[in-house]
Amino acid sequence: MALPLPIERLIAEFARFPGVGRRSAERMALDLVTAAPGRVGGLMDALRAVENEVALCERCGYFSSGGECLVCSQQRQREILLVVEKPLDVVAFEKAGGFRGGYHVLGGHLSPLKGIGPAMLRLDSLFERLANPEVSELILATSPSVEGDATALYIARHAERDGLAVTRLGRGMPMGASLEFADSGTLRMALEGRRSLDGR
Amino acid sequence: MALPLPIERLIAEFARFPGVGRRSAERMALDLVTAAPGRVGGLMDALRAVENEVALCERCGYFSSGGECLVCSQQRQREILLVVEKPLDVVAFEKAGGFRGGYHVLGGHLSPLKGIGPAMLRLDSLFERLANPEVSELILATSPSVEGDATALYIARHAERDGLAVTRLGRGMPMGASLEFADSGTLRMALEGRRSLDGR
Repeated sequence: MALPLPIERLIAEFARFPGVGRRSAERMALDLVTAAPGRVGGLMDALRAVENEVALCERCGYFSSGGECLVCSQQRQREILLVVEKPLDVVAFEKAGGFRGGYHVLGGHLSPLKGIGPAMLRLDSLFERLANPEVSELILATSPSVEGDATALYIARHAERDGLAVTRLGRGMPMGASLEFADSGTLRMALEGRRSLDGR
Repeated sequence: MALPLPIERLIAEFARFPGVGRRSAERMALDLVTAAPGRVGGLMDALRAVENEVALCERCGYFSSGGECLVCSQQRQREILLVVEKPLDVVAFEKAGGFRGGYHVLGGHLSPLKGIGPAMLRLDSLFERLANPEVSELILATSPSVEGDATALYIARHAERDGLAVTRLGRGMPMGASLEFADSGTLRMALEGRRSLDGR
């Protein structure tokens, strides 16, 4: 292809992004090389800012740019706390909309096989927040996997307190999915979790 | 979406790339934010290298990382010179393969409306190279547009010399195109440029 090494290197960096193939990476790199002055500088400034300024919220563990995150600094319902594994899970819930409570990001799930024990997750700060009698519901939204379930169970056991309801995310068929392609685990959970139509 | 400002800014920078929408830009930015340490630094190093090290070849005007470009430093046929408008056109020809001569990148086309005259293109260096009697064919591959044609005509007039053949890229139907969607200009050119099958 006869491209200078620095351009080839930039293409390789772009190709590391999920969903970006060699062709798209090439187009992006060549777009930058031929872009108006200041464009590369603008991108570098943005990258530097992300690297230096983005941290995790001291309170909930979600992305923040110093101190409390944008969710924690909003007026949200203080009665409900939703526990997730990763900051990206908060992004997903915020995109979905409809949830007005607070979040708590664990930073992973328990995994004895990978040597991840309770001390390596943000559990102490979670139990501290749960000690506040204002909190009346804890929703466990750890991933629907063996490790996620184990983590939820661990939290549920340690969170027992009068007046605190502990729930787990509903399981079953995802919206728009077709039954013929659903895996058997999902189908079994969908059957177990069946709900009366009157109850709606 | 409740994303910290630095992340939003990075998403906006990514969304400036051609073919990258808000969703892909978001995925890329969040991938970087949650990437292994060193990933952002690696991308920044690659950007810095592109900005500081990529220049235009002093000889032909294609991308280089200092001095002669990778094409000029190859053993290529010195008899044929292919004139294009942009460095990206060289990328296209090198990808297509089959051309073994040298390139000359003009840096644009003549455009009286935009105030781009001959002095603003790399024409002097082209005529200097053409003065070398080794060069026996000049292929004009300026863009198939009014300005591209005018630029080709200007070069053809000033390049006249004994023993120098001046040609223009073939015009007509692109490979794989369907007749019903071809514009009338292309169809007219395809008719004018018809070739005898015996001549193949």
